[in-house]
Amino acid sequence: MPAPYTLILLRHGESEWNKKNLFTGWVDVRLSEKGRTEAARAGELLAAGGILPDVLHTSVLSRAIQTANLALDTADRLWIPVRRSWRLNERHYGALQGLDKAETKEKYGDEQFMLWRRSFDVPPPVLADDAEYSQVGDPRYADLTDAELPRTECLKDVIARILPYWQSDIIPDLAAGKTVLVTAHGNSLRALVKHLDGISDDDIAELNIPTGIPLVYRLDESFAPLGPGEYLDPEAAAAGAAAVAAQGAAK
Amino acid sequence: MPAPYTLILLRHGESEWNKKNLFTGWVDVRLSEKGRTEAARAGELLAAGGILPDVLHTSVLSRAIQTANLALDTADRLWIPVRRSWRLNERHYGALQGLDKAETKEKYGDEQFMLWRRSFDVPPPVLADDAEYSQVGDPRYADLTDAELPRTECLKDVIARILPYWQSDIIPDLAAGKTVLVTAHGNSLRALVKHLDGISDDDIAELNIPTGIPLVYRLDESFAPLGPGEYLDPEAAAAGAAAVAAQGAAK
Repeated sequence: MPAPYTLILLRHGESEWNKKNLFTGWVDVRLSEKGRTEAARAGELLAAGGILPDVLHTSVLSRAIQTANLALDTADRLWIPVRRSWRLNERHYGALQGLDKAETKEKYGDEQFMLWRRSFDVPPPVLADDAEYSQVGDPRYADLTDAELPRTECLKDVIARILPYWQSDIIPDLAAGKTVLVTAHGNSLRALVKHLDGISDDDIAELNIPTGIPLVYRLDESFAPLGPGEYLDPEAAAAGAAAVAAQGAAK
Repeated sequence: MPAPYTLILLRHGESEWNKKNLFTGWVDVRLSEKGRTEAARAGELLAAGGILPDVLHTSVLSRAIQTANLALDTADRLWIPVRRSWRLNERHYGALQGLDKAETKEKYGDEQFMLWRRSFDVPPPVLADDAEYSQVGDPRYADLTDAELPRTECLKDVIARILPYWQSDIIPDLAAGKTVLVTAHGNSLRALVKHLDGISDDDIAELNIPTGIPLVYRLDESFAPLGPGEYLDPEAAAAGAAAVAAQGAAK
């Protein structure tokens, strides 16, 4: 099929741990009630905009899958094919998983806190395999090699594991002329947007993706954006991005 | 992987049209609130029984997909791979789609009513392509040839379109050692059970599958049952099957 191709990125709605201001990463928490509402509204935005996905790609984390299920139900597209991959998962937050963001900021200071959250290539401390929030032994990762299963990640690591999937699984669907919906996470979507928009390693720190608002790209025949990605509700997106940037502030 | 293999069949919970006692077929109605509760309970039964699906096959009808999504959420298996096919859809009910079951029974008489509902090889009258509840033009069937898209079906027709999918898509997952969950409909599951249990064309009329209760088969190396399928809640299943048999009675 000829270009332009249509790609929709959707960050999951608020989770129970977003609400509690905890580092989540690969911990498999569910959407909060607010998150479920956000997800349904994302589906309304897709339907109202006439931008209807033909195929869905999600991470293997429940909050992204719940978001997709609720959005597709509202948009009357529950029936489209689904692909899932750990490569679309949120950044693994290492030993920070399960910790309170505000307490962590207070304990380690602003500089260290922002380094862990936004550094391109400095990962948080490694999560021990026997720690409460380790993913070692989780059946959903049974097909991964031990080396593939992260114990912590920086954004650079996320890019290294997501781009192969972009090439092998998402691009072929786009090339077939399908409108592709990717329902994933703050950092896995930042990794994709960095690649699409050619954002530098330094500038990516400033990019915040709001929850629950579809971000639509039109792509040319080499799968590069024809223009900036457009949020289906720009005002809500701007407010949402500001809220993400403010995370970690004391509640 | 060596046998035995595990197959779970799950009929969707009550839909809005089940509740209203209308013939549904391929009309894409959603679950009722009761149906959502049934679906979540199906997931609890799977989790409590330790029978956890590794892969999901659904029809392309929303009520089956909603049932699977709710059951897998409760069973903490949202992340498993999903396959969908129109070949798992409910029987197409032809010109009866959208009609009230009790009114239809009264208008045409018990004998004709039961013939349409339970005859092995007599389909209801054809649904016109311009009728309100026709599926002609529905984007989810865009890949079907015109000959594949039914305008009415008897159970024999359902068997003819479901068995190729059993062979091509479900058996390979079983052969790989995966516990397979098939979330579908009263008649598409009757078609599968007829094949599995070798039920005769006459006797299949008596088989009623209750909604929302997982039916578990253990299969040998030739994918034939090692024994009768077992409902995870036998008492509720017996009551549910009796309720299905009583459908069409005036409310």
